[in-house]
Amino acid sequence: MSFNTFGHLFRVTTFGESHGPAIGCVVDGCPPNLRFTLEEVQSALDRRRPGQSRFTTQRREPDQVKVISGTLDHPMGGLVTTGTPIAMLIENVDQRSKDYADIAGAYRPGHADFTYDIKYGIRDHRGGGRSSARETAMRVAAGAIAAKVLPGVTVRAALVQIGNIPIDHTRWNWDEVGNNPFFCPDAETVHLWSDYLDAIRKKGSSVGAIVEVVAEGVPPGLGAPLYGKLDAELASALMGINAVKAVEIGEGFNAARLTGEENADEMRRGNADHPLFLANHAGGILGGISTGAPIVARFAVKPTSSILTPRLTVDSFGDETELFTKGRHDPCVGIRAVPVGEAMVSCVLADHMLRHRGQVGTPPQWPFTR
Amino acid sequence: MSFNTFGHLFRVTTFGESHGPAIGCVVDGCPPNLRFTLEEVQSALDRRRPGQSRFTTQRREPDQVKVISGTLDHPMGGLVTTGTPIAMLIENVDQRSKDYADIAGAYRPGHADFTYDIKYGIRDHRGGGRSSARETAMRVAAGAIAAKVLPGVTVRAALVQIGNIPIDHTRWNWDEVGNNPFFCPDAETVHLWSDYLDAIRKKGSSVGAIVEVVAEGVPPGLGAPLYGKLDAELASALMGINAVKAVEIGEGFNAARLTGEENADEMRRGNADHPLFLANHAGGILGGISTGAPIVARFAVKPTSSILTPRLTVDSFGDETELFTKGRHDPCVGIRAVPVGEAMVSCVLADHMLRHRGQVGTPPQWPFTR
Amino acid sequence: MSFNTFGHLFRVTTFGESHGPAIGCVVDGCPPNLRFTLEEVQSALDRRRPGQSRFTTQRREPDQVKVISGTLDHPMGGLVTTGTPIAMLIENVDQRSKDYADIAGAYRPGHADFTYDIKYGIRDHRGGGRSSARETAMRVAAGAIAAKVLPGVTVRAALVQIGNIPIDHTRWNWDEVGNNPFFCPDAETVHLWSDYLDAIRKKGSSVGAIVEVVAEGVPPGLGAPLYGKLDAELASALMGINAVKAVEIGEGFNAARLTGEENADEMRRGNADHPLFLANHAGGILGGISTGAPIVARFAVKPTSSILTPRLTVDSFGDETELFTKGRHDPCVGIRAVPVGEAMVSCVLADHMLRHRGQVGTPPQWPFTR
Amino acid sequence: MSFNTFGHLFRVTTFGESHGPAIGCVVDGCPPNLRFTLEEVQSALDRRRPGQSRFTTQRREPDQVKVISGTLDHPMGGLVTTGTPIAMLIENVDQRSKDYADIAGAYRPGHADFTYDIKYGIRDHRGGGRSSARETAMRVAAGAIAAKVLPGVTVRAALVQIGNIPIDHTRWNWDEVGNNPFFCPDAETVHLWSDYLDAIRKKGSSVGAIVEVVAEGVPPGLGAPLYGKLDAELASALMGINAVKAVEIGEGFNAARLTGEENADEMRRGNADHPLFLANHAGGILGGISTGAPIVARFAVKPTSSILTPRLTVDSFGDETELFTKGRHDPCVGIRAVPVGEAMVSCVLADHMLRHRGQVGTPPQWPFTR
Repeated sequence: MSFNTFGHLFRVTTFGESHGPAIGCVVDGCPPNLRFTLEEVQSALDRRRPGQSRFTTQRREPDQVKVISGTLDHPMGGLVTTGTPIAMLIENVDQRSKDYADIAGAYRPGHADFTYDIKYGIRDHRGGGRSSARETAMRVAAGAIAAKVLPGVTVRAALVQIGNIPIDHTRWNWDEVGNNPFFCPDAETVHLWSDYLDAIRKKGSSVGAIVEVVAEGVPPGLGAPLYGKLDAELASALMGINAVKAVEIGEGFNAARLTGEENADEMRRGNADHPLFLANHAGGILGGISTGAPIVARFAVKPTSSILTPRLTVDSFGDETELFTKGRHDPCVGIRAVPVGEAMVSCVLADHMLRHRGQVGTPPQWPFTR
Repeated sequence: MSFNTFGHLFRVTTFGESHGPAIGCVVDGCPPNLRFTLEEVQSALDRRRPGQSRFTTQRREPDQVKVISGTLDHPMGGLVTTGTPIAMLIENVDQRSKDYADIAGAYRPGHADFTYDIKYGIRDHRGGGRSSARETAMRVAAGAIAAKVLPGVTVRAALVQIGNIPIDHTRWNWDEVGNNPFFCPDAETVHLWSDYLDAIRKKGSSVGAIVEVVAEGVPPGLGAPLYGKLDAELASALMGINAVKAVEIGEGFNAARLTGEENADEMRRGNADHPLFLANHAGGILGGISTGAPIVARFAVKPTSSILTPRLTVDSFGDETELFTKGRHDPCVGIRAVPVGEAMVSCVLADHMLRHRGQVGTPPQWPFTR
Repeated sequence: MSFNTFGHLFRVTTFGESHGPAIGCVVDGCPPNLRFTLEEVQSALDRRRPGQSRFTTQRREPDQVKVISGTLDHPMGGLVTTGTPIAMLIENVDQRSKDYADIAGAYRPGHADFTYDIKYGIRDHRGGGRSSARETAMRVAAGAIAAKVLPGVTVRAALVQIGNIPIDHTRWNWDEVGNNPFFCPDAETVHLWSDYLDAIRKKGSSVGAIVEVVAEGVPPGLGAPLYGKLDAELASALMGINAVKAVEIGEGFNAARLTGEENADEMRRGNADHPLFLANHAGGILGGISTGAPIVARFAVKPTSSILTPRLTVDSFGDETELFTKGRHDPCVGIRAVPVGEAMVSCVLADHMLRHRGQVGTPPQWPFTR
Repeated sequence: MSFNTFGHLFRVTTFGESHGPAIGCVVDGCPPNLRFTLEEVQSALDRRRPGQSRFTTQRREPDQVKVISGTLDHPMGGLVTTGTPIAMLIENVDQRSKDYADIAGAYRPGHADFTYDIKYGIRDHRGGGRSSARETAMRVAAGAIAAKVLPGVTVRAALVQIGNIPIDHTRWNWDEVGNNPFFCPDAETVHLWSDYLDAIRKKGSSVGAIVEVVAEGVPPGLGAPLYGKLDAELASALMGINAVKAVEIGEGFNAARLTGEENADEMRRGNADHPLFLANHAGGILGGISTGAPIVARFAVKPTSSILTPRLTVDSFGDETELFTKGRHDPCVGIRAVPVGEAMVSCVLADHMLRHRGQVGTPPQWPFTR
């Protein structure tokens, strides 16, 4: 079952509310004898941390992570996994619950307030409780562990569209991603986004975005037909990130417009470990199984629902009212979704790496010999 | 784990290869005392059945389904579920395995041939074996059972785009869907598609498509934060259909372009069981939980990979060759994906209906009383 | 979830009622490229088959198994797994449903009739429907596949007690097990049991039994703390066999009587792959993980509930009545539980072998080097 | 999958090592709107807490539990569940890791030291790390929450045998259980055990025990054929408790000695909600489903492996050595297993209550009307 756990062999369970004492996670099934440092986890968290530019919420959370279990000190420094569950905790520091006093009863349009209330008959109104994007910090922490299960694999993401302004893919440069507050791989687009988002921010408005995740070095063969397909599980993992409304792999929706001739990824023997696909319309996955080519996934993040303009709504008693959000929020929550997307893809790949190893062991190497 | 099983409380396991003796499924966890008829299952299968128009593969499969277990004869006719696993079987009749003799070794570009080989070190080359779209027949059969778990819910799908030709949504008419070989809800688009697909078919080419599924009458509260979100599981179920490369809910990718003001689904008390959402940008799901508004999902199906134009490829020994497909195939496999999309959504909803009932029981009715 | 499926990576789903058209199973997650023959599966089934001596039910079921999917013909004979789900079917031939006409309403004491009715509000009264021991045929078929995942492992079982008559363990001889209708490893006990069971059978009575399963050659390290312990999963698998009421590992209940000194399995380096345990009170499992010593489990099977002596009972309307069973039944159902016990242990071990490989990969070999 | 999680709808994940900073658990899937108090959880923990008599380990752990998430303050006092995951933490206070310095390399016979090392290639030697009985504190905390899911159900356990000294069942008195340090329901046996255990303790030895758990008020119909049987899952849950080697339900192993006539639980209509079973040899479960009669389970706990008498063993380099345990330990760890047994049974029943509600909903009430 999957309420607050994802993964099968590499399993992540998260807990904690936005305005409770702490959030945390348990990473279960991580193989033993993997070395990592607290700094690596912290540095992943720092990329997602709020308050780092004027384009993300001003909530000040140091997001200092503690590892509670599942590791020993490595004699040469850092930590080493023991195969037992790795629990991590982050204390909540800057919870201004007062900001939420007005909205205790009324449902914020676009938020999960109404649905939690009607599902459970009760909800934690402080900052969205469990539905807050704050929970994604633990996904990022788990993703840093997952990366250790994936030697040789590089999972990176970038923001490729804000509002109506896409990047120019021909100018894609991974080195630029760390140079701007948007995780933008196209230096020339940064200024357009900066001006645009400043205007949005000043109006107390918000806007959506599109994130692209690329995983390179993924060995061919990961995935499991028919109901554990790699692309289906990536779709689930990415769609499950707060505010995400769409996911595509490779050509994605554009595949509807292509002919079979255009969409075929022809093959030549190549000179590396795997055959050279002459194109990668498939986004690295065929029949739910990785091909060895880069895995390319994109997902759309809707605009932050918390805005300053009053919106019509109702409260828990069914009374009609208006609501606007005073709390600190992101004008484009898609920005901070970039490291979350990377983390989710890492977790899915780590899980499939272990599952593949378990179910298949070592198959004969392709090309087969006669 | 999920290899060939999906669902948690309403669980479907499928088995069987395209060119083996039979395909089948086991529907486990179906509640007892639900009445259905074999004709209902058969009629769902008939909608997906190949060979019904010149736009789908000419393989002649009667797809006669047999129920092996899990039911008793109902005294008033038809069958009734007993709570034990419902196994269903369809014999394969028209397997022309000879069509596949040439491709035993070479990998069909865009197919799962290469990935199965590199994952397992062995594959069933007859018609794609397990990766064949033929497997989806069992999903449709399971979906017909799932529908019985969803009283008051209507799950319907339609084709909304073939190649570059979308329908006009303002002309949407569900009654038209059964009147044409495309499941097209827009009568005026039918002729455009007909001409276009005839040309594609005569060239031995293929083209992609987009399917839209709408579920009406879904009670609010279905879904499970945070890793059993209804939209995440729909994304997984739809992305897992053969040849699907993209999934979106509600505004989907378009949400990236909207502002918070535009995207908010404002609420008024309404006069029915649930509040009137003044819009449904969310596609019926907020925070991973159903709102009571219609659930709207779309998915893109890539063009059939089997085409007559030769494509460059390699074989299992790494030798380079060319390949074209002689077998009978669909010029637009997206057409037959329409009933499959309905079935997958029905199965996901049935599963969540049972999970909700289990975990939450009956919460206080909204609007709450003071 | 586990309704009709067991296992995690090596997963078995069964279906079918005692008096329906067929019973079957789907073995999912079996690794590819394992060779086996239909005869191996059939021969395992033949050991469990009824009607082979006067001490088991006279129902005549040939139990001819068919493999529907998941294999290819191996070029050198027999079959080879492909990694896709292996479905197997056995048709029911000798269903005398008339035998059950009298008991359609009344609940057979000791049977699951009442509990199925009160759980589901409906039940298949023909021979117990799904709760019949007939279902265990599919466990045996699955166990024959599981054995292929366990090279070097020998899983064998024997009957060690019928009624008040235990075997003498000092006379244990595996070679005797196939020489008598009881799977008895002690030749001298066979005649005692034979006389005793003849008397039981002639009275139309029944009696309980104890089965012991021994798995040799199990590599150390299988199992998963803390909620996937090997002994816990063996306990579940064996307790889940029809009519089983108790399970123990190693010393089992006798461990309550021992002191720490007596119960310690002291260790010497040994000269084989693993350290020599000087004793095996632990039954091959410590902390939920296999030690490399033989795994020893025992389980108790209650007397067959179907007997000729009338018993007080009620029917589905709450009316009081008396009932005795006319159908053909086993005087000691524990006999046919022997191959079922072997099969369940094989399935659990196969599952854990795959899980271990997945989660841990290859740890450094013990003894570790400095 | 089940490494450190158990349950399906009511799911408990534990983490933490005996000598790390803290141990904890996440209870996921608990229904919303259940009231409980921290004191209730604490009081359950206090029953299991070490150092309360001379018969349990002298480690001084206050075991103060903190609730981190998943609840809100209830307006009328105490806490109320919200449906989100309930995380609980207990800090480790009295870890004398120095006690374990000698055993860093050598394997304690009967402990999981060797198996962890050979499975993972690494282990936490401080007090057994994850395999310590300390982890069971979190099971008890989770069990206190589970009890809230089971209104009308009483789950109680008692110690019924230490070493060779069983209680006299005819003197069973639940009120005595709280009056002695053994959870003994038979006042006259207390002194026998007291003298016996004092002798054991003074020798630095240890001894095994048997615990009996009784669940009254369990509604009929809980359980799920065939691989989610209530007895099979109880067997797994109880066998999974540290040091447990055997589990039985109802007559258990004694069922082997009974005839069908003796073992039948005859039925009369009764005058309560469920039929009066004239006996309860079945221990409240038939066909894997609860009958409504009390559920009776027993399990055997082996003697504590940590003893003062030196035992032969090896270390991680394969060198032979001797070992005795200086740390503080329980002369009869079976005593503290009593509240753990209650907790595990409560968790299993809570899980099945939710699963039953989910899968079956409300079946027609027995007796059925014509």
